[in-house]
Amino acid sequence: MSKFRKKCNRYYKFGAPTMAKKVGVYPYFMHINSEQNPVVEMDGKPTIMLGSNNYLGMTSHPRVKEKAIETINEFGVGTTGSRLLNGTMELHVELEQRLANFLGMEDCVVFSTGLLANFGSISALLSEEDEWVISDQYNHASIIDGIRLGRFNQENKYIFKHNDMDDLEKGLRSVPKGKGMIITDGVFSMEGDIAPLGHLVDLAEDYDAFVYIDDAHGVGVLGSHGRGTSDYFGVTDKIDLIMGTFSKSFASVGGYIAASKEVCNWIRHKSRPFIFTASPPPSTCATVLAILDIIEKDDSYQRNLLDMALKMKTGLSDAGFEVTDSHTAIIPLIIGSEKKMLKFFHELYKHEPKGVFTNPVRFPATPKGRELLRTSYMASMNADLIDEALEIITKVGKKIKVI
Amino acid sequence: MSKFRKKCNRYYKFGAPTMAKKVGVYPYFMHINSEQNPVVEMDGKPTIMLGSNNYLGMTSHPRVKEKAIETINEFGVGTTGSRLLNGTMELHVELEQRLANFLGMEDCVVFSTGLLANFGSISALLSEEDEWVISDQYNHASIIDGIRLGRFNQENKYIFKHNDMDDLEKGLRSVPKGKGMIITDGVFSMEGDIAPLGHLVDLAEDYDAFVYIDDAHGVGVLGSHGRGTSDYFGVTDKIDLIMGTFSKSFASVGGYIAASKEVCNWIRHKSRPFIFTASPPPSTCATVLAILDIIEKDDSYQRNLLDMALKMKTGLSDAGFEVTDSHTAIIPLIIGSEKKMLKFFHELYKHEPKGVFTNPVRFPATPKGRELLRTSYMASMNADLIDEALEIITKVGKKIKVI
Repeated sequence: MSKFRKKCNRYYKFGAPTMAKKVGVYPYFMHINSEQNPVVEMDGKPTIMLGSNNYLGMTSHPRVKEKAIETINEFGVGTTGSRLLNGTMELHVELEQRLANFLGMEDCVVFSTGLLANFGSISALLSEEDEWVISDQYNHASIIDGIRLGRFNQENKYIFKHNDMDDLEKGLRSVPKGKGMIITDGVFSMEGDIAPLGHLVDLAEDYDAFVYIDDAHGVGVLGSHGRGTSDYFGVTDKIDLIMGTFSKSFASVGGYIAASKEVCNWIRHKSRPFIFTASPPPSTCATVLAILDIIEKDDSYQRNLLDMALKMKTGLSDAGFEVTDSHTAIIPLIIGSEKKMLKFFHELYKHEPKGVFTNPVRFPATPKGRELLRTSYMASMNADLIDEALEIITKVGKKIKVI
Repeated sequence: MSKFRKKCNRYYKFGAPTMAKKVGVYPYFMHINSEQNPVVEMDGKPTIMLGSNNYLGMTSHPRVKEKAIETINEFGVGTTGSRLLNGTMELHVELEQRLANFLGMEDCVVFSTGLLANFGSISALLSEEDEWVISDQYNHASIIDGIRLGRFNQENKYIFKHNDMDDLEKGLRSVPKGKGMIITDGVFSMEGDIAPLGHLVDLAEDYDAFVYIDDAHGVGVLGSHGRGTSDYFGVTDKIDLIMGTFSKSFASVGGYIAASKEVCNWIRHKSRPFIFTASPPPSTCATVLAILDIIEKDDSYQRNLLDMALKMKTGLSDAGFEVTDSHTAIIPLIIGSEKKMLKFFHELYKHEPKGVFTNPVRFPATPKGRELLRTSYMASMNADLIDEALEIITKVGKKIKVI
């Protein structure tokens, strides 16, 4: 029998997912049967959704839905083509211009997923043997794999300790001046901590490095009207590329790279993942445009989101849980043992009559001994719901002796 | 100045795209301002669309639009999460089951783009040092890059001559028995030619190879009710994986891998591009489900598509053009010189009062001396439109002396 069949069959019988299912601790691919609201339907019962990336709560905003629907009526359900060939509608061009304006950058390239924006931009930019990349150890998988796709010398990598500017400087010193690209998340997805971009851009200036920020979890959340982590630090003019995604605050699927017109032109013509992918459907463009219309005028969504996250952080801390000092939409509940973390996850999920859904985070997504439940918040939540979730989490936490 | 900025600036000033724009022969990123119908609006005038992948013409089908709209009303505009965590709706599970049934496979995994389906499946499967891949020289870029992402010995590759089963056998002989995976497109995107799967699966059996078919351009077009290239040859039970996309016959963006439950389980848990991407929006699932509802019952779309392509092939050939004996929705017009091909493209595009849009294909997408205009057809075209397009192509072809 083919080796490929054999290894898949063996994994299906004896692999970790199958074993976890057998003992009832498998935490993945749970089904949702409702809109992605603060309370969703899972397993036939209402469940408080503390495990989404729906930061601005826009997936079910009436004006956003209306705009997506109008656009389907006018422009159909898809483009069936790459941007390069038959997949550029005026909607795509409008969206790129609006995003560039919003972010304070010169130009923007839209991709069909956020992961592809990283894959496609990083691999296109790392194109010559003598180039270097200096990357935070906790950067997202799509950055790591984007680097692997780059056609440069794969040895030319320095992975710096998470958010450690001394180690970043050590990395910059070890790289030929002017030939390094620094890549970091703006907000880190698991613990919600923020990269120190003020310090980072100073170092970049000293060592003439190119700066690439993945702001997937920062846009919509930080900075004036949600312009993101660079805006929060007031350093947008010192950043070369800002990457972001449509599958979080922008409530759809897709991603973008905002940069100078020269860098965007490079990516449009050199990025294979961009060139060889069909463009986002008209309704995706309309969704993001509708959300930009709202948040450019009105920052109350962003403010309520941060209020709700702060309220939960304070509540959890007061109840005796270990939480970090996060200032974003992500509040991690540090548990420190995989077994206990999974038990906590399941007890919260199964809680009657209303469950609480969180994201279980284990090694290697977090270091051993730092296993955690990631919780995240939405602008469409209110204080009563936070109180209700807090009460359930506290009750369950006491029951299984996390506190 | 940073090397990255320098190279982008230089390319913006002196790169091939800029030079092509200066002399007015740049053929990319043309804007469409209408639905992707047989006649679209480009540059403010009606243009016959012979350069899409909208084979079944479903992007503007009333029932498809209606179903997408209903789903936005009921489930919102996005999931904001990966399938693994909070992005699995019952709609995704239903879609996977329906696709598996339609294709005659046991299970199916849905991805957020077709390119990611190849990236994610191939890189997940090629996971051990001693595995081999045997790949057609004209396979799509997403296959080539998926192989590059695999964590196997990158030397373990045999690229066989396009559709050449003798060379494939040579490759299989050079590989340890049972350790090779054959990858080929079912229908090739540029010339619309079909891989000889009958012969290929016999060889696979002889050498105990795993078989992976990218049927992006075959599904909807070939086989009973559009079940694709494997069905066309009656060899579905001898294929291990069938990959397809939603951005062609299925009128949206996304992709899938259909395979055994063991192989799908492997991909669901091992594929980083799958695990780290947000799931397709509800409206994408609804679009594909609505199209499956239609084509499972009614094969008149597929039949009309093939009739229209055949009518054009015959007409072009009768007019004296060099076309291949394609039996798919893609009819290539072989020009054989880049300069002439680009001139032909622009004259067709600028034709008044109605233009014709085609896809210019140059080296390296086609060998030097085989530069061509790719034309493709839609089920929603009728004989009058084909006659009209044929008349314009013939007139322009004579004017610039292609015939």
